[in-house]
Amino acid sequence: MSTSSHTILLIQTSPRLDSRTWADYESITDALDAICSMYEEFLSKKAAGGPVTYDVSQVYEFLDKLSDVSLMIFNRETGQYIGRTRAWIKQQVYEMMRGRCEHPKSGEKVIVGY
Amino acid sequence: MSTSSHTILLIQTSPRLDSRTWADYESITDALDAICSMYEEFLSKKAAGGPVTYDVSQVYEFLDKLSDVSLMIFNRETGQYIGRTRAWIKQQVYEMMRGRCEHPKSGEKVIVGY
Repeated sequence: MSTSSHTILLIQTSPRLDSRTWADYESITDALDAICSMYEEFLSKKAAGGPVTYDVSQVYEFLDKLSDVSLMIFNRETGQYIGRTRAWIKQQVYEMMRGRCEHPKSGEKVIVGY
Repeated sequence: MSTSSHTILLIQTSPRLDSRTWADYESITDALDAICSMYEEFLSKKAAGGPVTYDVSQVYEFLDKLSDVSLMIFNRETGQYIGRTRAWIKQQVYEMMRGRCEHPKSGEKVIVGY
């Protein structure tokens, strides 16, 4: 997975079309981090200041509840964007979370289980 | 220009990030039509029931005022999406409007000048 590919996140959080938004990132990892941050923000509202902990199955559930989510990832070889589905995103989030459990960053507040 | 290529419109109408939205269409023409419809809707609010008329320079001005606008167009040959800029969109809108002046559809309400 290339670490610096312009990546566009297309998201629709509810069945309402006006819940569609997009954002772009300098890498796939940044886009996946942003997705996890959205979930953490959602959790922190519920946790009311307590520690925010979650496992990958909860992120999957969050992703499944979105009306739509996809990524467009720039491919240097073609100069075009590869479309990636919800299933692909779930797989990548899993890989990313697994990697962080094996190599946690110091000061990481989120306790990740998988 | 292929007439049936899945086309994603990414738009940001103001400097506010929450004005970002996206929509997808079955063809480039449908996406360009949607952009013109957005402008017509904007005009019709100002026209208060009167006829809506505009020329291509006004659509250009409308497109230039958007904080961001781009298209992602599916390319069957690569299975990937080609990113298209504001400048490209303006050129295509011009071509489309010129074509319609030469071959107007019956009942077309919009008077197009260029």
